[in-house]
Amino acid sequence: MTELLTERSARIVAARKLTRRSGRDAAGLFLAEGRQAVAEALADPGGVREVLATEPARAAHHDLLAAAPVPVRLITEKAAAGLSETITPQGLLAVCALRDVDPGRLVAGPPRLTVALAELADPGNAGTVLRTADACGAGAVVFGAGSADPYGGKAVRASAGSIFHVDVVRGADLGVLLTGMRAAGVTVLAADGGGEAALDEVAADGRLAGPVLWLFGNEARGVPAGLAELADLRVRIPMRGRAESLNLAAAAAICLYTTQVRQGR
Amino acid sequence: MTELLTERSARIVAARKLTRRSGRDAAGLFLAEGRQAVAEALADPGGVREVLATEPARAAHHDLLAAAPVPVRLITEKAAAGLSETITPQGLLAVCALRDVDPGRLVAGPPRLTVALAELADPGNAGTVLRTADACGAGAVVFGAGSADPYGGKAVRASAGSIFHVDVVRGADLGVLLTGMRAAGVTVLAADGGGEAALDEVAADGRLAGPVLWLFGNEARGVPAGLAELADLRVRIPMRGRAESLNLAAAAAICLYTTQVRQGR
Repeated sequence: MTELLTERSARIVAARKLTRRSGRDAAGLFLAEGRQAVAEALADPGGVREVLATEPARAAHHDLLAAAPVPVRLITEKAAAGLSETITPQGLLAVCALRDVDPGRLVAGPPRLTVALAELADPGNAGTVLRTADACGAGAVVFGAGSADPYGGKAVRASAGSIFHVDVVRGADLGVLLTGMRAAGVTVLAADGGGEAALDEVAADGRLAGPVLWLFGNEARGVPAGLAELADLRVRIPMRGRAESLNLAAAAAICLYTTQVRQGR
Repeated sequence: MTELLTERSARIVAARKLTRRSGRDAAGLFLAEGRQAVAEALADPGGVREVLATEPARAAHHDLLAAAPVPVRLITEKAAAGLSETITPQGLLAVCALRDVDPGRLVAGPPRLTVALAELADPGNAGTVLRTADACGAGAVVFGAGSADPYGGKAVRASAGSIFHVDVVRGADLGVLLTGMRAAGVTVLAADGGGEAALDEVAADGRLAGPVLWLFGNEARGVPAGLAELADLRVRIPMRGRAESLNLAAAAAICLYTTQVRQGR
């Protein structure tokens, strides 16, 4: 008979620590909740330690879990609730290894499209930008020191599986990265509502065709001035209406899609 | 001496009802919280009934409130907390008239850009799409029956003032609206991950130059099939990466910005 893990079981107590950044960093692990995230995680079984499932979830996702190459452990509903950051826990989680790559790897072989985030505050935005970056063909997303953690529950959920598709860099010194990427031939663009160049002009003049790094900043304060200065260009999104600015994730979507179109498919 | 309103004062009890949709619809009023929203509201004083402010908020926003052409009433911190949907209430709210316009007005004189939302579930997305629509020059945003209410606290906050810039239509029969708009010469486009046309192709062939209505659907289910059929085209956003889909607000940002660029500034 399979052991049923409760909120007091050592494995669940350990997993619960992964709901905090300090716990994730200490263990080198994070939680991915829900069918889509667990399925994406299992596509690279080397990155998954174990799957935790309530009895109803195990039954509902039998097709997915029967073939899982890692242990599937039964947990109580209360244990599942303690691991979830959603109002309605899905009862299905994978314990996954952090997927950080070294920033030096980006400089050594820059992807065609890289996204860097400076002081991004909202975990939902962290996940949404990851998802958009993935959709637009980005090879890596860099979360600078002080940014929201892409491995938090809300961020993983908002990424809709994309955290398993792109290289993730955390805690990088963005000044060093931007300088290194420019030296490596990457066009570095900072999204900036007061930027000297308009996105449609930049798109028209061919500068998006080669390797590009887009830098986005904090939801309220934008890109820190010291970093914006290191970019080749500070780019504003032209606005016809009366809104003062765009939502960060919306602005990122516009910049990244415009770049994808110019880079060809 | 100015009366200090507590959470038990009749005005506050009445205002608190505006935190629920049924209360807003019954009173024909909604709450706009924070300096930016209150400032936007006061730009059209005819639409504002009163401003409610804690003593610290009144002091902090004295420049804005001293010239207010409507009553500014002092409220307690506890009263402010009861009216707020944020974790850190800002202590400053305007009681505003709902800004709904009749859908018939859209058909009679279509804006160059209209946004319609079918079964949109998330209030944050409702506000974010409003903000993006405003930035891209939309004249109206239509919330179909069953969509999140743009006058809820989270939606108003996410709109960042844009709810005061565009015409809002609620509860419209979208089938009737789409048919009417097409008859009025508007190109009706449904955003649809499985659509037969790619956005970059539609942008290139000139179809975005005239009046356009964009229809977006539910975050999980997309545009209802019966409505998608009524569009001139179902349009997909080409994706180069491995993400299955885009976040709704990100997809809307891409479609609306692409349209703005093609419509000229």
